Amino acid sequence: MYPILDKIQSPADLKALDLDRLNALAGEIRTFLIDAVSKTGGHLASNLGVVELTIALHKVYNAPVDKIVWDVGHQAYVHKILTGRKDRFATLRQQGGLSGFPKTSESVYDCFNTGHSSTSISAALGIARARDLAGEKHCVIALIGDGALTGGLAYEALNDAGHAKTNLIVILNDNEMSVTKNVGGMSEYLSRLRTKPSYYKVKSATERTLSKVPFGGGMIRIIRNLKDSIRRLLLQNTIFEELGFTYLGPVDGHDIKRTMQLLARAKTVDGPVLIHVYTRKGKGYAPAESKPQNFHGISKFDADSGAVIRSKVKADYSAIFGRHLVSIARHNPRVIAISPSMTLGSGLLPFARAFPSRFFDVGIAEAHAVTSAAGLAVGGFIPVVAVYSSFLQRAYDQVLHDVAIQNLHVVFGIDRAGVVGADGETHQGVFDIPFLSHIPNIALLTPSSFLDLEQMLKYAVSEHDGPIAIRYPRGAEQYPYRQADFEFGKGALIRAGRDISFVAVGNMLSKAAQAALLLEKKGISAEVISLRTIKPMDEALLLLTAKKTGRVITVEDGTLTGGAGDMIASLFAKHGLDIDLVCKGYPDEFIAQANPELIYRAYGLDAQSLADCALAHCVSKPVTIAK
Amino acid sequence: MYPILDKIQSPADLKALDLDRLNALAGEIRTFLIDAVSKTGGHLASNLGVVELTIALHKVYNAPVDKIVWDVGHQAYVHKILTGRKDRFATLRQQGGLSGFPKTSESVYDCFNTGHSSTSISAALGIARARDLAGEKHCVIALIGDGALTGGLAYEALNDAGHAKTNLIVILNDNEMSVTKNVGGMSEYLSRLRTKPSYYKVKSATERTLSKVPFGGGMIRIIRNLKDSIRRLLLQNTIFEELGFTYLGPVDGHDIKRTMQLLARAKTVDGPVLIHVYTRKGKGYAPAESKPQNFHGISKFDADSGAVIRSKVKADYSAIFGRHLVSIARHNPRVIAISPSMTLGSGLLPFARAFPSRFFDVGIAEAHAVTSAAGLAVGGFIPVVAVYSSFLQRAYDQVLHDVAIQNLHVVFGIDRAGVVGADGETHQGVFDIPFLSHIPNIALLTPSSFLDLEQMLKYAVSEHDGPIAIRYPRGAEQYPYRQADFEFGKGALIRAGRDISFVAVGNMLSKAAQAALLLEKKGISAEVISLRTIKPMDEALLLLTAKKTGRVITVEDGTLTGGAGDMIASLFAKHGLDIDLVCKGYPDEFIAQANPELIYRAYGLDAQSLADCALAHCVSKPVTIAK
Repeated sequence: MYPILDKIQSPADLKALDLDRLNALAGEIRTFLIDAVSKTGGHLASNLGVVELTIALHKVYNAPVDKIVWDVGHQAYVHKILTGRKDRFATLRQQGGLSGFPKTSESVYDCFNTGHSSTSISAALGIARARDLAGEKHCVIALIGDGALTGGLAYEALNDAGHAKTNLIVILNDNEMSVTKNVGGMSEYLSRLRTKPSYYKVKSATERTLSKVPFGGGMIRIIRNLKDSIRRLLLQNTIFEELGFTYLGPVDGHDIKRTMQLLARAKTVDGPVLIHVYTRKGKGYAPAESKPQNFHGISKFDADSGAVIRSKVKADYSAIFGRHLVSIARHNPRVIAISPSMTLGSGLLPFARAFPSRFFDVGIAEAHAVTSAAGLAVGGFIPVVAVYSSFLQRAYDQVLHDVAIQNLHVVFGIDRAGVVGADGETHQGVFDIPFLSHIPNIALLTPSSFLDLEQMLKYAVSEHDGPIAIRYPRGAEQYPYRQADFEFGKGALIRAGRDISFVAVGNMLSKAAQAALLLEKKGISAEVISLRTIKPMDEALLLLTAKKTGRVITVEDGTLTGGAGDMIASLFAKHGLDIDLVCKGYPDEFIAQANPELIYRAYGLDAQSLADCALAHCVSKPVTIAK
Repeated sequence: MYPILDKIQSPADLKALDLDRLNALAGEIRTFLIDAVSKTGGHLASNLGVVELTIALHKVYNAPVDKIVWDVGHQAYVHKILTGRKDRFATLRQQGGLSGFPKTSESVYDCFNTGHSSTSISAALGIARARDLAGEKHCVIALIGDGALTGGLAYEALNDAGHAKTNLIVILNDNEMSVTKNVGGMSEYLSRLRTKPSYYKVKSATERTLSKVPFGGGMIRIIRNLKDSIRRLLLQNTIFEELGFTYLGPVDGHDIKRTMQLLARAKTVDGPVLIHVYTRKGKGYAPAESKPQNFHGISKFDADSGAVIRSKVKADYSAIFGRHLVSIARHNPRVIAISPSMTLGSGLLPFARAFPSRFFDVGIAEAHAVTSAAGLAVGGFIPVVAVYSSFLQRAYDQVLHDVAIQNLHVVFGIDRAGVVGADGETHQGVFDIPFLSHIPNIALLTPSSFLDLEQMLKYAVSEHDGPIAIRYPRGAEQYPYRQADFEFGKGALIRAGRDISFVAVGNMLSKAAQAALLLEKKGISAEVISLRTIKPMDEALLLLTAKKTGRVITVEDGTLTGGAGDMIASLFAKHGLDIDLVCKGYPDEFIAQANPELIYRAYGLDAQSLADCALAHCVSKPVTIAK
């Protein structure tokens, strides 16, 4: 089926192929990618864009001796295909299957785990320094997209590397995209470099010409001054050269031959090199070329048409968030939305279209998203920062230092809170309760239904003062039943019970409510409470239910240490209550990729496990409230 | 005493002064600064460097209508002096006194609180966007040092601002220093801009000259090509221009007249402007000019000689850390030290001198410090990142995503853990236990003596595998008594007791031990335990002491939510123990500046308060262990 590709077991098998066969291989890889990802879902457009570049990389460099660090890492599929993992693509992003990102545990060809953006140059510089200290000689290569280059960490590393003079090869894969169209001054600058290659290529040509100019005659004085000036001007460089890098390029990254030439040349340069490669996201697959953002991360699709196969089109929390934010903003001109390059995923496209002047995509720059929001709040506006839970980790200090200390009214829409599934460890949104709830001044809400989210968002934007965050899960609502209206600082009694109390955080309410039904059949009367506000906690309600049943099971889609359960344990201790308390959530480990329902089951967060847990406690421990 | 300065109550009073009087004012401010800071301690060198610049700022701009954001903010003393706060300088950095940083709560002239580095451009851009949306016209100015420009957040903001075209004035105060000599490619670039002003100034001159060159005769063909090339080259710009800024400068920031001219010109420019001002840290005070790093943050000193007045020269944790790291590194060539521009403060100077090739000052770039450490660990080395607790907040995701997920052996020396005193809210190291202990794979240790630190560091570097952090306080050891040797995962029983147990975290051991002595006089027998490892916890020891006395008081120099006390409450709940548990630490609020001992007292962490608390619990609640 893939005459050339099927024979590639490792990069060594590339070495014998000539240019024609390499180009044919690129075609086969594209076909394979489209076929494989159409069946599993995954990142497609970015991988289609780096087919030739990855072939050239493995042809020119000698992995795994040479180290290649893939920024973000969702564009490493071709690398995985060429390094012996092609046959595992049917398991991509599934439980126990191939990761969608580089994983050192998966292959010796993956030298550094990635997932979040903008880490590659920094990691590669560390690896390069280790190489130098060990007296080794291999190449260290960071492959970074222009989108990831908007992240401050990438710049911190460029700045350090340019100064260090260590041998380091940075390949800038410039496709003018983050997830959507890339933004920022750097992006515009790269665009100028790319579209006017002569603008920089002219340099060496001019140097040669100038040395030949027969300066003499009457012009001598003017020319002498001019020549000196020109010399100085000729010293001017690209930004990367100014920072201490040798700049090579730009080169068309779909031209294997010319790309290989530059990659080979980079090996001969002393000190840090940046190779500017331009590619096209979605290259070679018409649906992806025309709408690359739709093929960034995609679920299963029809390979012929590019149409996504959906079992049922359900609204998700992101869309609900975006929709209600638009309707709130219609009535309040002070409402601003900010996205760190996640406009689409965060459901903000309707907002961006309705209020272009009040919407800011700041690039992949979570820290700046938050601090600039603080500035907007100081200026009298109400910024709403929509950000994925695992990416907000990158702005922890900005939330604390720039927003919370000044007690500014900034609203955080924390999307993808709880496990997200296929993206695995790096993207699970399981730390936001622990990393936010200890920050003074911040309020932390968690809806268990779309209506909850709507009411919480309205409250957060229109009535609250000070920093406030709403964490909501990926996907559809799990508990679409009528509940009491949201009231700040109050939990909701969903079901009264006698024997044991479930205190559920967010979407775990559906599991707890189902567990209560299962328990009912066993003659156990379970009370179910939706916590709603993690901070401030509804202490009265929690104490009431605890004293009533004497047994509490907290259920949260997050890590246990520092989570809602720990806070409730502390509350009970403070009140000297002797309660049979069980905290369900994630233990002290990173949560691997898998369908969320499989994860819930593995960690005892599904309805049956919760019911079993409750039953065991009701049977084994007769309750006596000590105090 | 200060004939001109004494008449300045607000910036409006500057408007009538001519250049001579402004220069005389600068002299008076210097004298005042040296005198005031010599009595209170504080940041001196950076403020001496911006005297003229701050005068020019307030002369040209119209604060508080125009908004000035001070990056970091410890260089805002002159601004405070000129905005009506001169008479409060005797209270600088003391409890209830003038803050060492801008505080919106302190003056309308302070529009944004700062403290950590590199936030100003981002905050100012937010404020500028708010201005535009509100239809206002005032100027927004960010004043940032070249040191702070190494932080990624500054670049994220430059990138966004350059693209946004919003009116925004960034003043780059270039003194070639962070706390010590600045590093990085950007720093070298600025140095070229600064030392060869003609290198860029020549641009417009050359453009004029070129248009006058009488190109003709035999040279016409060569020259025509050349002219075209030169035109293209002339389009080249500074990095800042490439990112979308108008670049003005460089200008000598001690020349009030020329600085004012550039500041005024910036007001007329559409879109973002960067003004490159070069200044000298410590300017006008010989001891500070010659050793600016010693006058960065300084305690009380003799104004004539510049000699620091010390009551007693005590070793501090930083010095002990640095000293032992050197001796460990002598025997292990794989040990590397990394500092985000805090070499001196972190006690790493001896290491940097002893092992220059194994020491990396990466600039003010905490995120990069951590991720590049991960790279070094992947490369087989043992990186030790020394960083202040409050600054590690900026690398939370890098610790989690780049180090912990890969379970890499990176050692974190967390200096200034617990309250630091005079620097106030932004610098209190009270969040590290909550923000680290929920991260899987990481171990978290806390010494209560120099010997503890020595043994922990040795263990962390030489025996542990995986990420490990040691948090130690600012200053001298509080409990210099012989304890049992450190053993990983084990707490230490310091004193056996019968009635109540203190579980002390780090330097709080001294308070708990003193409290036990006070209690002894009242006939109460208190057990005292040094927790030593916050993670993993010595569960056996904690359960043992809890069951023995039935009453536990945890004592930590950190915020309570998600802290060690919460983890212990959760442990007791998990084991169904009915313990009278009291957690002492900081409540859910930011901790204002004050001498640490005053803070301990205010929050009940001093020995007497702890003893009182224990006594109340022993008297009021007869203990019966329920289970």
